[in-house]
Amino acid sequence: MLRTHTCGELNIKNIGETIKLSGWIQKSRDLGGMTFIDIRDRYGITQLVFNMETNSGLCGKARKLGREFVISVSGKVKERSNKNKKIPTGEIEIIVEKFDILNKSKIPPFTIEDETDGGEELRMKYRYLDLRRNPVRKNLELRHKMALEVRKYLDSQKFIEIETPVLIKSTPEGARDFVVPSRMNPGQFYALPQSPQTFKQLLMIGGYDRYYQIVKCFRDEDLRADRQPEFTQIDCEMAFVEQNDVLNTFEKMIKHLFKVVKNIELDDFIRISYNTAMKFYGSDKPDIRFDMKFVELNDVTQGKGFKVFDDAELVVGINASECADYSRKQLDKLTDFVRKPQVGANGLIYVKYNLDGTFKSSVDKFFNEGDLKKWAEKFDAKPGDLLLILAGEKEKTQKALCELRLEMGNKLDLRDTNKFCPLWITDFPLLEWNEESKRYHAMHHPFTSPKKEDIDMLSTDPGNVRANAYDIVINGIEIGGGSIRIHDRELQKEMFTALGFTEEEAQAQFGFLMNAFEYGAPPHGGIAFGFDRLVALFGGSDSIRDYIAFPKNNAGRDVMIDSPSTISAEQLKELKLKITE
Amino acid sequence: MLRTHTCGELNIKNIGETIKLSGWIQKSRDLGGMTFIDIRDRYGITQLVFNMETNSGLCGKARKLGREFVISVSGKVKERSNKNKKIPTGEIEIIVEKFDILNKSKIPPFTIEDETDGGEELRMKYRYLDLRRNPVRKNLELRHKMALEVRKYLDSQKFIEIETPVLIKSTPEGARDFVVPSRMNPGQFYALPQSPQTFKQLLMIGGYDRYYQIVKCFRDEDLRADRQPEFTQIDCEMAFVEQNDVLNTFEKMIKHLFKVVKNIELDDFIRISYNTAMKFYGSDKPDIRFDMKFVELNDVTQGKGFKVFDDAELVVGINASECADYSRKQLDKLTDFVRKPQVGANGLIYVKYNLDGTFKSSVDKFFNEGDLKKWAEKFDAKPGDLLLILAGEKEKTQKALCELRLEMGNKLDLRDTNKFCPLWITDFPLLEWNEESKRYHAMHHPFTSPKKEDIDMLSTDPGNVRANAYDIVINGIEIGGGSIRIHDRELQKEMFTALGFTEEEAQAQFGFLMNAFEYGAPPHGGIAFGFDRLVALFGGSDSIRDYIAFPKNNAGRDVMIDSPSTISAEQLKELKLKITE
Repeated sequence: MLRTHTCGELNIKNIGETIKLSGWIQKSRDLGGMTFIDIRDRYGITQLVFNMETNSGLCGKARKLGREFVISVSGKVKERSNKNKKIPTGEIEIIVEKFDILNKSKIPPFTIEDETDGGEELRMKYRYLDLRRNPVRKNLELRHKMALEVRKYLDSQKFIEIETPVLIKSTPEGARDFVVPSRMNPGQFYALPQSPQTFKQLLMIGGYDRYYQIVKCFRDEDLRADRQPEFTQIDCEMAFVEQNDVLNTFEKMIKHLFKVVKNIELDDFIRISYNTAMKFYGSDKPDIRFDMKFVELNDVTQGKGFKVFDDAELVVGINASECADYSRKQLDKLTDFVRKPQVGANGLIYVKYNLDGTFKSSVDKFFNEGDLKKWAEKFDAKPGDLLLILAGEKEKTQKALCELRLEMGNKLDLRDTNKFCPLWITDFPLLEWNEESKRYHAMHHPFTSPKKEDIDMLSTDPGNVRANAYDIVINGIEIGGGSIRIHDRELQKEMFTALGFTEEEAQAQFGFLMNAFEYGAPPHGGIAFGFDRLVALFGGSDSIRDYIAFPKNNAGRDVMIDSPSTISAEQLKELKLKITE
Repeated sequence: MLRTHTCGELNIKNIGETIKLSGWIQKSRDLGGMTFIDIRDRYGITQLVFNMETNSGLCGKARKLGREFVISVSGKVKERSNKNKKIPTGEIEIIVEKFDILNKSKIPPFTIEDETDGGEELRMKYRYLDLRRNPVRKNLELRHKMALEVRKYLDSQKFIEIETPVLIKSTPEGARDFVVPSRMNPGQFYALPQSPQTFKQLLMIGGYDRYYQIVKCFRDEDLRADRQPEFTQIDCEMAFVEQNDVLNTFEKMIKHLFKVVKNIELDDFIRISYNTAMKFYGSDKPDIRFDMKFVELNDVTQGKGFKVFDDAELVVGINASECADYSRKQLDKLTDFVRKPQVGANGLIYVKYNLDGTFKSSVDKFFNEGDLKKWAEKFDAKPGDLLLILAGEKEKTQKALCELRLEMGNKLDLRDTNKFCPLWITDFPLLEWNEESKRYHAMHHPFTSPKKEDIDMLSTDPGNVRANAYDIVINGIEIGGGSIRIHDRELQKEMFTALGFTEEEAQAQFGFLMNAFEYGAPPHGGIAFGFDRLVALFGGSDSIRDYIAFPKNNAGRDVMIDSPSTISAEQLKELKLKITE
């Protein structure tokens, strides 16, 4: 037996007991006649004491132990004279009688401390050492707890977890697939799933009623920061439901998670349409921790000779409350911000509603006090407020103002990481035009159902068809999305036609699903959550990588195991493949 | 809202309520003035009633509904006059007031009944219909329940579930890997994991102490019956443990499963060494639902002029209790059985211990009553027993007698599928000689530790080194196996040398693990269970395919989605790959 207890559990009740602990040496202090060593495991830290006077042999040996050595110690639990109230074991220490070195350690390439001196790359190469640090361990423990609570909740709601296959079929719709050559079927490939979408729909057709799975999915995309080629979804589907049934079920799940994991009771989530979200926040994932809604000004800005406004499809602004005292320099900085290519505005118009009730704007030449007052009324502005206005092509201007709104939220400390404001966005467009391929693409995926009342527009005005599709957004982050699916063969066919599939292509790719629709497919719908991102949100971080045990870097590489890597000529030959360069 | 209740929950308490149900039409009976329709969902079946007299329009419409149509009905719950005690809803029926057809159905290609008329291939092609059948649904519900109970148990034991990567690195040890070309790193490949072995060891080095994962693994093998290219493991690892800690922990898990899933209280599992298992059962996965242990007879059979025995490395037999009355024909059949190529014996010697105390054997020419009596004593045989004896080269003979023992177990109805007899097999050989590659291979895997007392033999007598490795076997089926791992860099190096790796090869393939051993690797060990097989065992079936939602056939194909399949020329070009034939 290598231990009787863990390093996190001994306390005042164990005084006098003879115990055995195993763990890593966190630190060691020699104080003249005494040596104190902190021994660490997953559960905590316990103080070991060696006395030069009473046992100089053992103490001498202990002084040679280095950081991260693995030892096993036997001794007696003693009350400490100098108690540490900060840790659960802080009232006791171990008078060591005997120890064994279970394994030595070289000096680690970075310190195994909460704040480490190791850079990202070094820590990733030695991820097994990085994993020893408390913050990383806590992240993975959080992930475990959340997965377990998701399962408990869904099980209580009669969902059953069903594993869908990983070796599936490549489809041209959506992102790029990872493929797997089949040795037994030369020239043919499996694909790794981007999601279990079609399988969960088949499970509904198969009568499973409520399905879920916490499942790895794969996407061969050019990686941006914080994208991983493999990621984890909480994937769910329900039969015999309408949109509100899905929303209610999963709103409860998120509330359950906040309650048990963070002890936060959330109010009912607000639900707004995509169009409303765009109009008031310029985004389909608005951060509603703060208000600062968009106000459109077209009707009060036209015809005064200011060409920027007169030519603009949209004149729209936000009210930065109590910022009328912004300096020239601060305003210039904001102008620089909106002009950045990733924001994309041409310029920024401001109106200061001074505390004395006067107005000062960057367009005083064109607009008098009376005009500006009218604007201020639209914003419900008070003296002391600052109006920030953009103008131009509608979508571009909304997007730019969204960025400015978030920037102002940051500047004004309105984006508290301990506050959580979820909402549902509904009624997404069914299709979006793709300039490159010159055809419509499915905004969500090709199985999303159009709203009944919009079906007629599928052939006449596809761009304006709304879908029974919804996203759940928390603090400006999309954590999940789903839809009510098509369950009718004819409508699915129509959808594929709208997406530019020939009948043959549709049949070759999704024939099995369309055939399944012929045998009594029930109405159904579902949702998928990005589990990595959900955990990161709960952990208070932007980086999903911190919540994955063995993440890949931005080039899709695992630098610890050095993968991907070349394979042998024999393997290639067996697969009947040749590398072309 | 598409339903107020499911088809499995209405009973006598709901009488008089107006309810709404949705589901599939299981069957329909016209009885003159009445039509009865059974509506089915995942939760059960409810009887609907339509009356030609009181509502001929509705009843007429109902009579046109076909099998597997999906309908939604509103009506009143009424007590049945003719109750069906076999189903929970059998005391009530629904007087239908209104119904909608949610979807029509073509006539299914096979009957959606417990006993279907559909063959395996047809059912796999239409798996979404096969999934509607009760036996299949029960299998998947069992799988869900078992996964959940495994998680609950391991969580209670402080195991944390950690996801390990799916896109990893190809290694030449073990079975063949599936590989995934990396578009971003042309000419390089990821591999899909055959198990998360090295990652779970790194998690122990990272201090996670107790890890588990229910995880998909992959093996590109020529498929035999009941092998799947992707399969699911319950993968576990513990730090600071010795072999008995692992065995005790997982014995409790299996007991927990039997208790909560099947309400069976299992006794403590017996533990025997590999050598003992081979000696008494000729197998490392003995079925101990029945005794019939091997008895070795070399010492009492030699030197009587019977060349078959005199030349044999091993003379060994079993006692088929109360079978002395076997006829000539029955004995000939057994001889034919042992001579089958897959059994491989040359012949069978029998000794009948007749009820009158006399002996009759197939070797009476060489052995007299006194000799045979001595044999019978060795078997603890009683009058009425039949001794069945094989002779020849040791391993081959053990294997053949193992098959004969199982065959006799079947004939004598000793292999009750409702009886579960688990045991641990320990002390496996570390290495096994491979004739093809002319080198030793790891019997378990290259990370398994040799027994301390056998380490010295690694260089002198590698074939006889025993490992700290163990399997768990139930009813002759190996459901899991594991080992205490090497945690010392030097020993791991020695192991790779014994396996014929050059230092460079070992470093290139497993350098990250050996390097990790240098930074304080704790003693650790673990186990992995074949989850598909475990569920099949609990379900009382030999076929794992019945417990997988979307299995592949023996050629590794998913016949429903028709995968694997060809990919586009553009995809190949992006991957910089060419198919060579």
